[in-house]
Amino acid sequence: MGRLVLLLLLAFLMPGLAIPVPPALKALSNLHLSTSFTSRPSVVMKYSIHYIEQKGFMWDVAEELKAMLVFAEHRYYGQSLPFGADSFRDSRHLNFLTSEQALADFAELIKHLKRTIPGAENQPVIALGGSYGGMLAAWFRMKYPHIVVGALAASAPIWQFEDIVPCGVFMKIVTTDFKRSGPNCSESIQSSWDAINRLTRNGTGMDWLSEALHLCTPLKNAQDVQHLKDWISETWVNLAMVDYPYESNFLQPLPAWPIKVVCQYLKNPNLSDKKLLQNIFQALNVYYNYSGQARCLNMSETSTSSLGSLGWSYQACTEIVMPFCTNGIDDMFEPQPWDLKTFSDECFKQWGVKPRPSWITSMYGGKNISSHTNIIFSNGDLDPWSGGGVTKNITNTLVAIIIPEGAHHLDLRANSAFDPMTVLLARSLEVKYMKQWIRDFYASPRKKH
Amino acid sequence: MGRLVLLLLLAFLMPGLAIPVPPALKALSNLHLSTSFTSRPSVVMKYSIHYIEQKGFMWDVAEELKAMLVFAEHRYYGQSLPFGADSFRDSRHLNFLTSEQALADFAELIKHLKRTIPGAENQPVIALGGSYGGMLAAWFRMKYPHIVVGALAASAPIWQFEDIVPCGVFMKIVTTDFKRSGPNCSESIQSSWDAINRLTRNGTGMDWLSEALHLCTPLKNAQDVQHLKDWISETWVNLAMVDYPYESNFLQPLPAWPIKVVCQYLKNPNLSDKKLLQNIFQALNVYYNYSGQARCLNMSETSTSSLGSLGWSYQACTEIVMPFCTNGIDDMFEPQPWDLKTFSDECFKQWGVKPRPSWITSMYGGKNISSHTNIIFSNGDLDPWSGGGVTKNITNTLVAIIIPEGAHHLDLRANSAFDPMTVLLARSLEVKYMKQWIRDFYASPRKKH
Repeated sequence: MGRLVLLLLLAFLMPGLAIPVPPALKALSNLHLSTSFTSRPSVVMKYSIHYIEQKGFMWDVAEELKAMLVFAEHRYYGQSLPFGADSFRDSRHLNFLTSEQALADFAELIKHLKRTIPGAENQPVIALGGSYGGMLAAWFRMKYPHIVVGALAASAPIWQFEDIVPCGVFMKIVTTDFKRSGPNCSESIQSSWDAINRLTRNGTGMDWLSEALHLCTPLKNAQDVQHLKDWISETWVNLAMVDYPYESNFLQPLPAWPIKVVCQYLKNPNLSDKKLLQNIFQALNVYYNYSGQARCLNMSETSTSSLGSLGWSYQACTEIVMPFCTNGIDDMFEPQPWDLKTFSDECFKQWGVKPRPSWITSMYGGKNISSHTNIIFSNGDLDPWSGGGVTKNITNTLVAIIIPEGAHHLDLRANSAFDPMTVLLARSLEVKYMKQWIRDFYASPRKKH
Repeated sequence: MGRLVLLLLLAFLMPGLAIPVPPALKALSNLHLSTSFTSRPSVVMKYSIHYIEQKGFMWDVAEELKAMLVFAEHRYYGQSLPFGADSFRDSRHLNFLTSEQALADFAELIKHLKRTIPGAENQPVIALGGSYGGMLAAWFRMKYPHIVVGALAASAPIWQFEDIVPCGVFMKIVTTDFKRSGPNCSESIQSSWDAINRLTRNGTGMDWLSEALHLCTPLKNAQDVQHLKDWISETWVNLAMVDYPYESNFLQPLPAWPIKVVCQYLKNPNLSDKKLLQNIFQALNVYYNYSGQARCLNMSETSTSSLGSLGWSYQACTEIVMPFCTNGIDDMFEPQPWDLKTFSDECFKQWGVKPRPSWITSMYGGKNISSHTNIIFSNGDLDPWSGGGVTKNITNTLVAIIIPEGAHHLDLRANSAFDPMTVLLARSLEVKYMKQWIRDFYASPRKKH
């Protein structure tokens, strides 16, 4: 058997509707972190291995590098439930859901694969991942450089913690996406919040709006109205994440450049409240009803598939504490400060745990990561998560790749005729770095352990 | 405030009589891993800090580098008991006793110190440790390079795991120490085992031997005899660890070059069994009664102070699984293979846990550590732990320092007029490397997180 490279893909299916925080905070605390693999999650549990039938950049890389491709499912996601149906019962059962434990799983998995797959023993391994999976890929290289020769961390917001980046950067990027996708688009959305507030002052207005937006469940009180605004906000966020140059089906079936399509309905912010909201419905309909199958819009969901929201909610309440905020000036949303106290109280109510906002920085170094090597951080300028990502080279082996026309980990998606040149360049650069890591691996003396 | 360097000393007090493994295995599984700080352990728990009044190399380094010196006590040792008196009750309470958790404690401690000590925030930190503390120092730099600029790992047997080094190397070095300390010394010890076996075939012989060795508790059966041999073996091991060039009081009050003193009683291996054992008593007496205070020799202890044996026994039964063996050919002991199965069964009996012999290698890389930087591994040729240590440079920033006349972390001990030149050189080289790390730290752009 010739040279074989293991590519470890940290495929993570990040969350949808998660922790029941107060409605006002909800839209911001439930932001999606996702990968493009939502169809059938692969399963690796107790060393059994399953495959999925879907293709992306990884398959091309694997072919190019003559590599074996392994999808490792994160514990507590998909079918990797350590206590079966009891896994999410209480904090005692959830105690083992940490990024550190997940990384250790990958280390053990790779050791196992090397031991059991003929010819694999002395081969280099590369970690790849997008979104939270990208963070894990980067952290895995940082903590286990003896196990992987390098990592591709696509759209990995490893700096979306504490005050490393401003908490408003995420929603600012969402807003920019709408601004550039059509004249008056972000202004129309900005105007819509007050329009909703005015329209829903009484029951008649609520009824009218429920009807106009084709809501499956009519609005009944102020809490429902807040929920509506959170749900609409989350919709704009999701659109920013999946603003791909071709039809896609990641969080929802969508047209190419979906924000452009949405913005065609949002050209005039100075309409009457009712007219404006009718346009907002048309815009929402692009996201929720591109397939034309929806009879009504369901506020209880923002994506078609469950992306492990329960596990993510717990992780957000322990380690993965990402501060988000809006101010209504730099962004098109209603102002909402980051409120750790309220967030923490809600976490305690739901899970009996309190978040440790500085843990990830203690663990993984925050901005002080320059002593590590061989990590590619790729980010798309359209992706709101790029705000917490590494977008400048740190050293000549900790490199940043920017995809100006890219949304959330576009580079990990399958090749398409509609791909912008910048993502093609990004992919070829990524492969170039990986080949370099492999060359370095073979050039250096290797040890058994 | 000018430049200030934090020196983090991972002071570990490693174990004496630990897990009740079958007598035959006992001598080997209870090998000491210790630092020179046994008097009053420092305490850091819930951020309270205490100091100890004892001086070693660290004080000189701290003065030289104008550094603050911090002793961090390992959780579950000394007074750092997370569940107070219940800490060792069962595996549920012991669940948090891992090297990973201890390293995370140090990370949090350093962050806390930097936050709270005026002037400390932007200062470099160096980790120092000996023995298990040396392993932790090295591992800390590997896993938290954003927190410490480098580590001095003195007498740190990071390769005494799995089959990275031969399991017999430890006892072979012990034997070599006795061989070089006097003619026929190791041969006399080698002969003593059969002499004991022959003498203790019956009750009269056991009585005679108990008397001859001044045992506090007379031998009664074969099990006692095995215990006696294990205890004697452990005594020789301890002497090898503390074979310092001056009077010392580490595991026991001892003369300078104690093995030389011991070997003065062991010059003839061909004596009658009784004569030989009378000489063995004289030799043991050097170790157990240098102060002249002991009325009888107590087989239930091999060192004057408790070195956290309970915690160590648990760690040896989970992560820190170090294979030891003897063959009676390359060493002066009765042959005893490494038997993981029996060891594991005994662990399960005592703690309800089973060891994971490959965990440390998975976690910390075994021999594949070349991607890390700024670690000094110092080892003394007399120290049996050097067999599992890093004794050759790995890269130009992962360096090995050998002290030919050094026992267990001699370099960390206070300066003495009797210090061999080689340890003086080692210490000055260590300081030189530390200064380089500090210079590099100040030369590179620093980030807040």
